[in-house]
Amino acid sequence: MPALDFAFTPWTDVEARLTRPTVAVLPLGAVEQHGAHLPLTVDADLALGVARAIADPLDALLLPAMPYGDAWNNAAYPGTLSLSPATLRAAITDIGKGLQEMGVSSLILLNGHFGNHEPMLLAARDLAGGGLPCLHLDYPGLAELAEKHCDSTPAAPHFYHADEVETSMMLALRPDAVRMADAAPSYPTFPATFGAEPMQLRSFNPSGVFGDPRPATANKGRAFIEGIAANAAPIIAAFLHRHGIAVIEP
Amino acid sequence: MPALDFAFTPWTDVEARLTRPTVAVLPLGAVEQHGAHLPLTVDADLALGVARAIADPLDALLLPAMPYGDAWNNAAYPGTLSLSPATLRAAITDIGKGLQEMGVSSLILLNGHFGNHEPMLLAARDLAGGGLPCLHLDYPGLAELAEKHCDSTPAAPHFYHADEVETSMMLALRPDAVRMADAAPSYPTFPATFGAEPMQLRSFNPSGVFGDPRPATANKGRAFIEGIAANAAPIIAAFLHRHGIAVIEP
Amino acid sequence: MPALDFAFTPWTDVEARLTRPTVAVLPLGAVEQHGAHLPLTVDADLALGVARAIADPLDALLLPAMPYGDAWNNAAYPGTLSLSPATLRAAITDIGKGLQEMGVSSLILLNGHFGNHEPMLLAARDLAGGGLPCLHLDYPGLAELAEKHCDSTPAAPHFYHADEVETSMMLALRPDAVRMADAAPSYPTFPATFGAEPMQLRSFNPSGVFGDPRPATANKGRAFIEGIAANAAPIIAAFLHRHGIAVIEP
Amino acid sequence: MPALDFAFTPWTDVEARLTRPTVAVLPLGAVEQHGAHLPLTVDADLALGVARAIADPLDALLLPAMPYGDAWNNAAYPGTLSLSPATLRAAITDIGKGLQEMGVSSLILLNGHFGNHEPMLLAARDLAGGGLPCLHLDYPGLAELAEKHCDSTPAAPHFYHADEVETSMMLALRPDAVRMADAAPSYPTFPATFGAEPMQLRSFNPSGVFGDPRPATANKGRAFIEGIAANAAPIIAAFLHRHGIAVIEP
Amino acid sequence: MPALDFAFTPWTDVEARLTRPTVAVLPLGAVEQHGAHLPLTVDADLALGVARAIADPLDALLLPAMPYGDAWNNAAYPGTLSLSPATLRAAITDIGKGLQEMGVSSLILLNGHFGNHEPMLLAARDLAGGGLPCLHLDYPGLAELAEKHCDSTPAAPHFYHADEVETSMMLALRPDAVRMADAAPSYPTFPATFGAEPMQLRSFNPSGVFGDPRPATANKGRAFIEGIAANAAPIIAAFLHRHGIAVIEP
Amino acid sequence: MPALDFAFTPWTDVEARLTRPTVAVLPLGAVEQHGAHLPLTVDADLALGVARAIADPLDALLLPAMPYGDAWNNAAYPGTLSLSPATLRAAITDIGKGLQEMGVSSLILLNGHFGNHEPMLLAARDLAGGGLPCLHLDYPGLAELAEKHCDSTPAAPHFYHADEVETSMMLALRPDAVRMADAAPSYPTFPATFGAEPMQLRSFNPSGVFGDPRPATANKGRAFIEGIAANAAPIIAAFLHRHGIAVIEP
Repeated sequence: MPALDFAFTPWTDVEARLTRPTVAVLPLGAVEQHGAHLPLTVDADLALGVARAIADPLDALLLPAMPYGDAWNNAAYPGTLSLSPATLRAAITDIGKGLQEMGVSSLILLNGHFGNHEPMLLAARDLAGGGLPCLHLDYPGLAELAEKHCDSTPAAPHFYHADEVETSMMLALRPDAVRMADAAPSYPTFPATFGAEPMQLRSFNPSGVFGDPRPATANKGRAFIEGIAANAAPIIAAFLHRHGIAVIEP
Repeated sequence: MPALDFAFTPWTDVEARLTRPTVAVLPLGAVEQHGAHLPLTVDADLALGVARAIADPLDALLLPAMPYGDAWNNAAYPGTLSLSPATLRAAITDIGKGLQEMGVSSLILLNGHFGNHEPMLLAARDLAGGGLPCLHLDYPGLAELAEKHCDSTPAAPHFYHADEVETSMMLALRPDAVRMADAAPSYPTFPATFGAEPMQLRSFNPSGVFGDPRPATANKGRAFIEGIAANAAPIIAAFLHRHGIAVIEP
Repeated sequence: MPALDFAFTPWTDVEARLTRPTVAVLPLGAVEQHGAHLPLTVDADLALGVARAIADPLDALLLPAMPYGDAWNNAAYPGTLSLSPATLRAAITDIGKGLQEMGVSSLILLNGHFGNHEPMLLAARDLAGGGLPCLHLDYPGLAELAEKHCDSTPAAPHFYHADEVETSMMLALRPDAVRMADAAPSYPTFPATFGAEPMQLRSFNPSGVFGDPRPATANKGRAFIEGIAANAAPIIAAFLHRHGIAVIEP
Repeated sequence: MPALDFAFTPWTDVEARLTRPTVAVLPLGAVEQHGAHLPLTVDADLALGVARAIADPLDALLLPAMPYGDAWNNAAYPGTLSLSPATLRAAITDIGKGLQEMGVSSLILLNGHFGNHEPMLLAARDLAGGGLPCLHLDYPGLAELAEKHCDSTPAAPHFYHADEVETSMMLALRPDAVRMADAAPSYPTFPATFGAEPMQLRSFNPSGVFGDPRPATANKGRAFIEGIAANAAPIIAAFLHRHGIAVIEP
Repeated sequence: MPALDFAFTPWTDVEARLTRPTVAVLPLGAVEQHGAHLPLTVDADLALGVARAIADPLDALLLPAMPYGDAWNNAAYPGTLSLSPATLRAAITDIGKGLQEMGVSSLILLNGHFGNHEPMLLAARDLAGGGLPCLHLDYPGLAELAEKHCDSTPAAPHFYHADEVETSMMLALRPDAVRMADAAPSYPTFPATFGAEPMQLRSFNPSGVFGDPRPATANKGRAFIEGIAANAAPIIAAFLHRHGIAVIEP
Repeated sequence: MPALDFAFTPWTDVEARLTRPTVAVLPLGAVEQHGAHLPLTVDADLALGVARAIADPLDALLLPAMPYGDAWNNAAYPGTLSLSPATLRAAITDIGKGLQEMGVSSLILLNGHFGNHEPMLLAARDLAGGGLPCLHLDYPGLAELAEKHCDSTPAAPHFYHADEVETSMMLALRPDAVRMADAAPSYPTFPATFGAEPMQLRSFNPSGVFGDPRPATANKGRAFIEGIAANAAPIIAAFLHRHGIAVIEP
């Protein structure tokens, strides 16, 4: 039985589902530049796609993606829009509290954007401290999957942005929003203080692409999504077991 | 030329558009019960649809809808999820500041959910005080349109929720998400203190429907959306004129 | 037995009163321009007068009016002073918590200034959520009373500011603070975006008067106050009944 | 020429006054127990009275007293109500900012309640940092005045609460609100940790009176008010001189 | 048995100590100018020294001093650094909550810097309200000790800053950090509004010294430290007794 | 010329130093368990030691270490004490603003505790946005140094806590605070959800040691400190160059 996607679910179905232990999955995205070939909503699009792959086998509540995140270091590319870290943390915490009052047993945060990591962690800490077990996942095992499936190399270790990985996933999920004709590689030189001081990425990368999106295919995209979901499965199982939550899988 | 829908727009198109005076439109929704026949995302779905109708003739930036809002008084129906008023206000303000830094000339907030009204106003005040003209619209002229097009009567004056109006608009925008077979009327008796104290709607309305959704049709929905956009047009024109913004309409 | 007006009440009387279920009434005012014929304190003066009319039959605690409110859109008229919405909300919430700790059974917020409406609602939600039933009243039924008693027409529907209504009430409550010789009518033209964007009233109304204060009389003022109190009575009765509070009326 | 008391002043008079350098005086009170013979509003009543004595020779703006303050350590006596220190500080800062925007040259905070001291200082620091010179006065020279005029001794050094001093001032300002028949002395024993840990005064003083109110007279009250104003005059003169403000005294 | 100085204590010792009722002592300092002969850390150095003298007989937990405080009025002397009052209050409250969760029975705040007084009080109120008894001490009885031991007079009553008192204490605790050759007296004239408006001390005192540090000796410093500890002892005993805490002194 | 260590520096020296471009170094520590053989202050002790090695060649201002940090996941070991992330961020931001007002050209944050990383980043963003260039360093190149110098293996990749690395550094800096007799290895099994949900380390590690501290020596400790400083040097040089700051190295 697939997840209860809130975009198609009346409240009465939620109430019925809540008679059994129920997990909710909240995708976290961002409005952020992804080069000249991908739309600004990539991070939310991908997070929703991965969240669905994770939520389906759990018969979980699949919540609307939070489309805005903290994309501060991409602000110099027009089109990027951010919530402050404090606002993002508060938004996740507010949503989590609502889930807890509703009777949901636990929350999985599925993050599609690096800049959301810390607000997500702090919200998870708030929620867990308040009694709602809260798992937070960035795409687990992505580095290994990228090494396995990609024909190009990343611009930096563990750095996948508007590249073969993200473009492939978009081709799998929303091909009509991808302009492959405009896909072009970019391997910028990182400043020596990268990662050690606040820095706009545009100061050393004019295009916004990190790596080479050209070899991207929808098949690779499906492999990434399925691979991430497969990597997440044992972590989720351990999480549910740790908190004594028996989600009945039909 | 249609709006630049961020779900299909790379940052390079936004940069190109910003060489002329540019308006942004931000739809505000909610995750909230809408009876047994409509999904929890109705308010964001409708706000996005109306925002598109408003944004297209302005060649505006059409931002992703904020899917979560302040739906406190529907919290007793499972599935409803809220941001606190302070969080919602902060989110709108954060987004507006990003638009201003990007070079956008003004912002139109298009609100699809009553509970968002005040956080929206306060965010608009913050932004306008900071130099970004900010128009905030709930569906202008909806009461007159409802009286004109509806075959049913509302449950209370100016109260349209999961009824013929909203159901029609959903049939026009996302018919696959509507379950007309489950549409049923509900005309609850309002408590004497309704509107004068904090109150959960479920305390006097078991179904969550206010009015009668059964006469809804997609044609009526299109009439509402077009009518709202038509009502909004002169207000927007006055707004732009008042602030000396010459948006070039192709 | 009249209300316990804190301006004349030692704490020992409050302690004695609290042996029975006790309601508190908090008037909310503003420091705001009211034309050339009325003082800046009108909103607090009127709120206190109406609050007294409501508190007396309840043998309630009549608290000092909060004299400052959110009068942002009158800021361009010198003399107007505002609390931010967040400060006002916090002030009401702080006071309400103190009442709850004291043993008061419920709180009635009596608001004399439109701009306070939303901070009042949010404070009421905070307090009700914390266990203190909280009714919030703007002058109930004022439109009908104005239509019945006034010889002039309002400047806009439901808009009563420094006009026949407010001037009459001031003549009834504090005639020594009214300068009828300076009362002059003003029927400004409202901008098309009025109510849809943050706007200073002075941008289209030089005098600050909305309507015609000249026909005001103290008798009409008393009719307004008594009429509002009469309209409030059944709402208050329903509120107390809803929360199981049996206030003994002597 | 007396001060412009906002309770009797239309905005047009304020605008006219602001053509010359203008000082505003904001009295700070509290809703706090003052024994069985004085009402809960004493601190605001006295602060307003002293503020008037200070404001008159300056032809200043006399603002409505903030009736609520931070009276935390009297909370155990029913009737006492507090703003949190943060709320009080924010309220004073909000009001000060409004005065600055209006064109007022400086602000005098006249504090009638010990517990307000620190929020007042912090607000003054905020405002001075923002460019509004801000003087904060607790009753200057009160100890010497008390020693000179009182027939009773205080309950502790520099501690005047519901005693001969405050009762006399109330007899001078609002005699109808004083119940001399209920005035009774109280000289409690202070715990060894008084002043060194948070403590409710009621834990060692059942009546709330500190000292002996019985010798109070209106004449003494007038002597206190005039004496405080006389003590304040050179401080105010030095303050205005220090900031180069030439207030024209008629 | 001496205090458990956290700078030398593993967590296992703390756990062992907590099997008996345990007091923690938190010294509060500041980074603030102290003339040309003393380092910027004087207030934390002295607070730690006094805290140790107090903590030893209690076998207490001696926490690391908070080295930063609120030294706003010394900001014009380079080297001075401040936390805002809100940050300082939050820091103390955070630490106190951690102590409470750990099982500590009570907290003694030992303050070495005047500007910390109010944030300390508010934090103590927060903590006491949350169930952790909290004593706050500025150097008790310092005025009497200064009068007894000093050969110089203070620059103003109760004002000891970079003078004979503080210099002597530094000579007793950290003589290697004192430059007696640079010690010079300073008796500035205080402005008439000192204490009644926010004011930088440098505006009337070029050197930063208040009084005469030259007669300072280490012996006097030890007398101050021992004297303060002796004055604190009965207050602490009363505090522990008041809260029923039986600290076993070995 | 060595750094100006604030623990030995009067304000007059700071003022003199500020006539040339000046860097400040702020060490960030924590009060956190470090096994049975190391004191609770290790993180601040080491951060100060490394900061000194970095500050000396820059002739920088060496600020007092912030001894408290965010050690939430060690809270279950008594003795651990935390600031909330928001408090820590505010403290760093407050200090940075003070440095900027003082005329310091840039700030280096030297972090000795993993849990401080994100509050440090956000504070750096605040400060850089306000015009103070801000570099944030965790011990750069520590993994390579550990692999080079250690005889033991870490408990997990990039995880150095109370192990050979930290114990060696403490032996180099504060040998009197180390109890080598109590040093014992611990290689716990990490839960599958480690890093993916909020988790107390004590839930799977009774001792608090991660790795084997027994091979630690002071010589290794010096090698770590010197190695980190050497790794930091080119990053700092790039940082200063990037911001056009010419620090004169004598």
